[in-house]
Amino acid sequence: MSISPFESAIYGGLFSDPEILDLFSNAAEIAAMLRMEAVLAVAEGEAGVIPKDAARRIVETAGSLVIDPASLAAGTASAGVPIPALVNALRDAVGADAADYVHWGATSQDVIDTGLVLRMRDGLEIFAARLTALSVQLATLARDHRATLMVGRTRSQQATPTTFGLKVAGWRQPLVRHAVRLDELRPRLLVLSLGGAAGTLAALGDKGLAVEAAMARELGLGVPALPWHSQRDSLAELAGWLSLVTGSLGKIGADLVLLAQSEVREILPGSGGGSSTMPQKANPVGAEALVSLARFNAGLVSSLHHALGATHERDGAAWQTEWLALPQMVVATGAALLRAGAVLDDLVIDSARMRANLDAANGLVLAEAAAFALAQHMPRAEAQALVKDACRAVTESGRHLTDVLAEKTDASVDWDSLRDPATYLGAAGALLSRALED
Amino acid sequence: MSISPFESAIYGGLFSDPEILDLFSNAAEIAAMLRMEAVLAVAEGEAGVIPKDAARRIVETAGSLVIDPASLAAGTASAGVPIPALVNALRDAVGADAADYVHWGATSQDVIDTGLVLRMRDGLEIFAARLTALSVQLATLARDHRATLMVGRTRSQQATPTTFGLKVAGWRQPLVRHAVRLDELRPRLLVLSLGGAAGTLAALGDKGLAVEAAMARELGLGVPALPWHSQRDSLAELAGWLSLVTGSLGKIGADLVLLAQSEVREILPGSGGGSSTMPQKANPVGAEALVSLARFNAGLVSSLHHALGATHERDGAAWQTEWLALPQMVVATGAALLRAGAVLDDLVIDSARMRANLDAANGLVLAEAAAFALAQHMPRAEAQALVKDACRAVTESGRHLTDVLAEKTDASVDWDSLRDPATYLGAAGALLSRALED
Amino acid sequence: MSISPFESAIYGGLFSDPEILDLFSNAAEIAAMLRMEAVLAVAEGEAGVIPKDAARRIVETAGSLVIDPASLAAGTASAGVPIPALVNALRDAVGADAADYVHWGATSQDVIDTGLVLRMRDGLEIFAARLTALSVQLATLARDHRATLMVGRTRSQQATPTTFGLKVAGWRQPLVRHAVRLDELRPRLLVLSLGGAAGTLAALGDKGLAVEAAMARELGLGVPALPWHSQRDSLAELAGWLSLVTGSLGKIGADLVLLAQSEVREILPGSGGGSSTMPQKANPVGAEALVSLARFNAGLVSSLHHALGATHERDGAAWQTEWLALPQMVVATGAALLRAGAVLDDLVIDSARMRANLDAANGLVLAEAAAFALAQHMPRAEAQALVKDACRAVTESGRHLTDVLAEKTDASVDWDSLRDPATYLGAAGALLSRALED
Amino acid sequence: MSISPFESAIYGGLFSDPEILDLFSNAAEIAAMLRMEAVLAVAEGEAGVIPKDAARRIVETAGSLVIDPASLAAGTASAGVPIPALVNALRDAVGADAADYVHWGATSQDVIDTGLVLRMRDGLEIFAARLTALSVQLATLARDHRATLMVGRTRSQQATPTTFGLKVAGWRQPLVRHAVRLDELRPRLLVLSLGGAAGTLAALGDKGLAVEAAMARELGLGVPALPWHSQRDSLAELAGWLSLVTGSLGKIGADLVLLAQSEVREILPGSGGGSSTMPQKANPVGAEALVSLARFNAGLVSSLHHALGATHERDGAAWQTEWLALPQMVVATGAALLRAGAVLDDLVIDSARMRANLDAANGLVLAEAAAFALAQHMPRAEAQALVKDACRAVTESGRHLTDVLAEKTDASVDWDSLRDPATYLGAAGALLSRALED
Repeated sequence: MSISPFESAIYGGLFSDPEILDLFSNAAEIAAMLRMEAVLAVAEGEAGVIPKDAARRIVETAGSLVIDPASLAAGTASAGVPIPALVNALRDAVGADAADYVHWGATSQDVIDTGLVLRMRDGLEIFAARLTALSVQLATLARDHRATLMVGRTRSQQATPTTFGLKVAGWRQPLVRHAVRLDELRPRLLVLSLGGAAGTLAALGDKGLAVEAAMARELGLGVPALPWHSQRDSLAELAGWLSLVTGSLGKIGADLVLLAQSEVREILPGSGGGSSTMPQKANPVGAEALVSLARFNAGLVSSLHHALGATHERDGAAWQTEWLALPQMVVATGAALLRAGAVLDDLVIDSARMRANLDAANGLVLAEAAAFALAQHMPRAEAQALVKDACRAVTESGRHLTDVLAEKTDASVDWDSLRDPATYLGAAGALLSRALED
Repeated sequence: MSISPFESAIYGGLFSDPEILDLFSNAAEIAAMLRMEAVLAVAEGEAGVIPKDAARRIVETAGSLVIDPASLAAGTASAGVPIPALVNALRDAVGADAADYVHWGATSQDVIDTGLVLRMRDGLEIFAARLTALSVQLATLARDHRATLMVGRTRSQQATPTTFGLKVAGWRQPLVRHAVRLDELRPRLLVLSLGGAAGTLAALGDKGLAVEAAMARELGLGVPALPWHSQRDSLAELAGWLSLVTGSLGKIGADLVLLAQSEVREILPGSGGGSSTMPQKANPVGAEALVSLARFNAGLVSSLHHALGATHERDGAAWQTEWLALPQMVVATGAALLRAGAVLDDLVIDSARMRANLDAANGLVLAEAAAFALAQHMPRAEAQALVKDACRAVTESGRHLTDVLAEKTDASVDWDSLRDPATYLGAAGALLSRALED
Repeated sequence: MSISPFESAIYGGLFSDPEILDLFSNAAEIAAMLRMEAVLAVAEGEAGVIPKDAARRIVETAGSLVIDPASLAAGTASAGVPIPALVNALRDAVGADAADYVHWGATSQDVIDTGLVLRMRDGLEIFAARLTALSVQLATLARDHRATLMVGRTRSQQATPTTFGLKVAGWRQPLVRHAVRLDELRPRLLVLSLGGAAGTLAALGDKGLAVEAAMARELGLGVPALPWHSQRDSLAELAGWLSLVTGSLGKIGADLVLLAQSEVREILPGSGGGSSTMPQKANPVGAEALVSLARFNAGLVSSLHHALGATHERDGAAWQTEWLALPQMVVATGAALLRAGAVLDDLVIDSARMRANLDAANGLVLAEAAAFALAQHMPRAEAQALVKDACRAVTESGRHLTDVLAEKTDASVDWDSLRDPATYLGAAGALLSRALED
Repeated sequence: MSISPFESAIYGGLFSDPEILDLFSNAAEIAAMLRMEAVLAVAEGEAGVIPKDAARRIVETAGSLVIDPASLAAGTASAGVPIPALVNALRDAVGADAADYVHWGATSQDVIDTGLVLRMRDGLEIFAARLTALSVQLATLARDHRATLMVGRTRSQQATPTTFGLKVAGWRQPLVRHAVRLDELRPRLLVLSLGGAAGTLAALGDKGLAVEAAMARELGLGVPALPWHSQRDSLAELAGWLSLVTGSLGKIGADLVLLAQSEVREILPGSGGGSSTMPQKANPVGAEALVSLARFNAGLVSSLHHALGATHERDGAAWQTEWLALPQMVVATGAALLRAGAVLDDLVIDSARMRANLDAANGLVLAEAAAFALAQHMPRAEAQALVKDACRAVTESGRHLTDVLAEKTDASVDWDSLRDPATYLGAAGALLSRALED
């Protein structure tokens, strides 16, 4: 066990996401914060808040400055935020008079939050692309298995026939909705943070909104209705979205774990999954990871909601709670998306076993079908009771339900047709087609 | 302490919401489920799945049937859902041949989930209306206090001046976003549940989609892309939304508790809040309740996310987890919305005390302003150091910052203007106007 | 869905616990609070804090007073606690001079918290008794099945043979530890709350500790080192314990759900579990409820830990968070204990099917055994590789592992003995005996 | 924001704990796992399960082997656990025949869980020592301030006088209980994990318990009643304990944040806390970190409770959930303990300001005292009403309560004594003495 399995040399392959790790690397964070300082200077130069020359000097310097993360450690521990140390480093590099105009009128939270938003924009692009790819992957799988019969299972019991295609379409559908949700939340989340010391932009005099507009334009971010130092709903919404994504992938994982059970074995987990002691084992490692990542995020989403209570104009403790929980949720989501793609790629689907399991049910999964068929010939309650009796006989005798029923009644049911699970799929095909259209 | 403070005769006044309690009453649940059964029968009658006469008989009966909730208890304990018992009661009431056609082709989850959705539709209407009202209430308050000066506070420290109006606008803005989010989630949530035994609508043969369409039309609900027995993302999204709402109200509550502190006392909690032993006390009871309701929902949102892992075609345990957590979140949200309105109505705002607290800071909250003013006359670092020194002197001597500074420097600063916190509000007014426009 | 399934006429049979509901009824709460007021009066009378006559009058009145819960509603909504209204009602009933001495020197939290502790004492007695009963029930089951062979399953895969007895002993063992934990936490939890207005017992002058000691003696509670109005660790510890209990029962439930799967069917859920549409279904309703109750508590335990941050000498919001979460956790635990007993009573264990599933594995669950047996005759890596090859052949051919291996090697292994899973149980029996000893 | 602030070069100083990071370093994990393999070999050699020579060779090799963590990455990603790759590396190093006897009869979970337990033993030692040190630090602080008068505050309102010493004793008391809880949980947690493939120790034949006993002795761990691969209650209990500790430290942090508010300023956060823009600021950085670490753990404790549902003989997803959450909780706890010590060391206590705040209340915090004093001369209800009236007058006039009251009544109260808050401390001193005794 590592402190952070996401960054661990040992465990990273199980749980990690190199692209997202990059976004949350020290270098990326420092670069994003320097970018913010540069764009601030430009906008202030243009608005006449600071001298244009100073702005130019700041931009040039910030653009090429490399700051050693460790050099910010002491300052961060002291101030509780890395900004004073970062600003000092930038000032030192800028030198002379222009140094005075670095970070003019901004506050630490402006820089950190905008730095986060900029990186989340990239992260959400990555997630959107992966969601699309996964959705295509699942759509193909669903189409390929539109006619693959299998047992539908409810409350752990074999219920009625379904198709593996419809099951896969059901895995895919939430992802389609998550893509829509992502589009909806983006404009709320991807906004500049600029409020200054206490959210009034006081140090910018009457130029606050002009600077804000110019910065947002330059950064390609939206302008929030108000500075959001202590309005954290869009971050909590993001956390919710991340956990929705991992939750839906976790459901795929959970289904796969169940389908991979030795007694069911309708899928094989593909490569990997070897045991240190049991030669026959092929553990569904990737599927399990989807489940555990889902549970991890489902726990942390609560932390972001607790951070909504950020008090007054800035709340250090609530803000730090976000630091402790949100980046991990982002990488867990990235890891789950990556892993889901790999698991599905690697999946071995045993259609024959699906069919065999269906047949092994001896028609019990057609009990509803039989009851409805018989209800054409007798009161439904009577039909249900008859089928229930027959089910018991099936379990005891191992005979097929239709055989047992055919003996119990003269009702002119087409037993051969009833016996074929493919005739009891209802709207499975139509539903699949409808779902894959979007 | 009661099992459910929401329904408690003693505690209900603190935490409850009669309208939402009504929506989740046994009577309302039974009515919604009967409505579903009736509409199912109509649609099936029209589609030729069941005889029209039977459908008519079922609709008539379901429309007037009163079922004693306690009569469903044993059946619910046995089946894990109330539907078999409810369907039996409906069949008994329908009588004769038509009884056979009750609940034709549906499954318990169709009835319970649609029953929930129908009631949530009403609940969300109520919440939308309350959000609007609250937003208006806060907008008025913000406008009334657009010029009410107060201390802005960050990380527990007095920071710079702000206005109470801007603070209130900051309370309001998330609610505006929540209203948008609500509009976005509604079409995902307010959809019919109809999947039949395992999500294929098998018992409806080739009439499944037609029945589904007719039912959705009749109920005024959307048609989901697929049956959603084990796609629970829209419920988790709802839970997230509920907790966003209570979280934002909890932030108002937390600010009010802090503002009501004896040492701050910029607001008084209004009526109530008496102590059993201390005559001077006026506890901010309503504000505290907003905080505790927020925390409660922030915990339970996690439960709904855990329920996303619903396995296969239906998962009893995941589903029941929703039953245990979701209705409570709904009523907690309703209670918080009600309570927030009442708290704000009842609020006594002490503008004079706000001003007095600002003045009592002896100009420390103008330290940033002074540093920027001095930076016109000397390097900013020097200005900052000078002000920092002066702040220490202010704390020790109790003199005003501008007086101390005026002694320490000949820089030709307009000390009188600097001394007036109203001159250091930056974009406060413009931000407030912009925020209230939408 | 009901607001509180625990108190619902419809759902109570699934999730509830009448004894615990009684403990948290309005009547029980009021009685416990009146008891506290009475004992306070007695102790103060004896200590000379209030007149003995007044004390006598208060005790008599409190002992017989019946207060309508609804009469406390308005006062609770106003004060945020029911105590001012309750004290007023008691004063009215006491009448005349003695009324003045009611609630002398105590504060609301003293009364509510002591009232909770008194009821939790009874609740924990009930839980201890049920844990013991369950432990006995499981010990008997384990002993009965000490020799019942079944497949051990790890990471969803059949692993090696085990016995149902050992599995059941594994269900039981955490309950044994929970009983020990309960004994350990009791003295921390079952203590008087008496601090007065701000935890100094100021109104009792120099008699505070004497009154406290007398009250604790009379109530049979411990004396805490300090008043605990804002030291809530013992309540959070209790919440953790409750969730440990439901978590361990949830594991039993989860195992039962898996064992009840149609493809495994080693247990049948007993009575109940009928479907509204599928005649063959027997859903594991009780087992599912154990899982959902566990998840519910696993969510709420977090709320109690968040409430640890209670600020200063009393924190309304943190305290109310306990009210919203703790009683529900108590009843959920009670319900799970009740339900677990019932589920186990009702369980149908199909030993023949356990054996059949073991045999159906065609020796794959003996792969480890085979590898170790062969390792007596060749390097272990070679043995592992040989067995791994053979496993593949078994899966493809459906032949038994020992048959396949016997063909692949001349190593003089006793294949008949190896073929018998009963020979590969290692310490299963010894472990079971050791575990059941305590 | 970093993925793991605990390991971040930038943020580590705020949130981290070098000693605990060491315990969870890759090197420490690998060493602990190799230790387990070595001790396994010794015990098996002694028990005659494997050749003594092989055992000797394994022990020697394991004792000096250095494994590059990155070399385990691919194997971990494939198998879901690092053990197969680690065992291969050890076998390669052991070489020749002895290699066959490496990891004989054990399973991955035995090695990982025992490796965790061994490191937790060291971690808990560290925590115990820090708890003791903190408890001593707080006891000294409490004693030093046994007579430092300050305002007691309940529900955000000034209540009655108390002492800073008693407040500090209240911070300390939960830590004393946590030390006791730690002693109680240790024997449950610090036990060997040895179950083999499915918890029966099958591969050890009849030597399983002997090997287990020898290993436990050698490692200084306890012997569990049963293998605990899917009995995770002691880990969930540990998580609960960690969160209790951080919760209690978070309460100290929350109190300090409130006491450091500009309007209260009874403590100063000591060094650090500078702002990037406001010269006057001294943010309570360390205190805030205590709050955010507490919230972080309060969220994650739920994850460990969810992992209690580990199914069958081993559950990959539940186990991995522990990996994602538990090590972080350990380091968060370590960080909070370190930080709390530093914060308290660094604390500047302003007793004069405490007194000034008390005096500034104009006697309102003596309202209860006054009511009790007057109740000697008139009915208590009358006294309460009189004081309530007077309180209103105090708030309006700014006069002292005793002055106002003295005008309103002729009751012969000793107003001078009443006016002195030191006379209304009740049992504060006695309580403090009692609490510090243990």
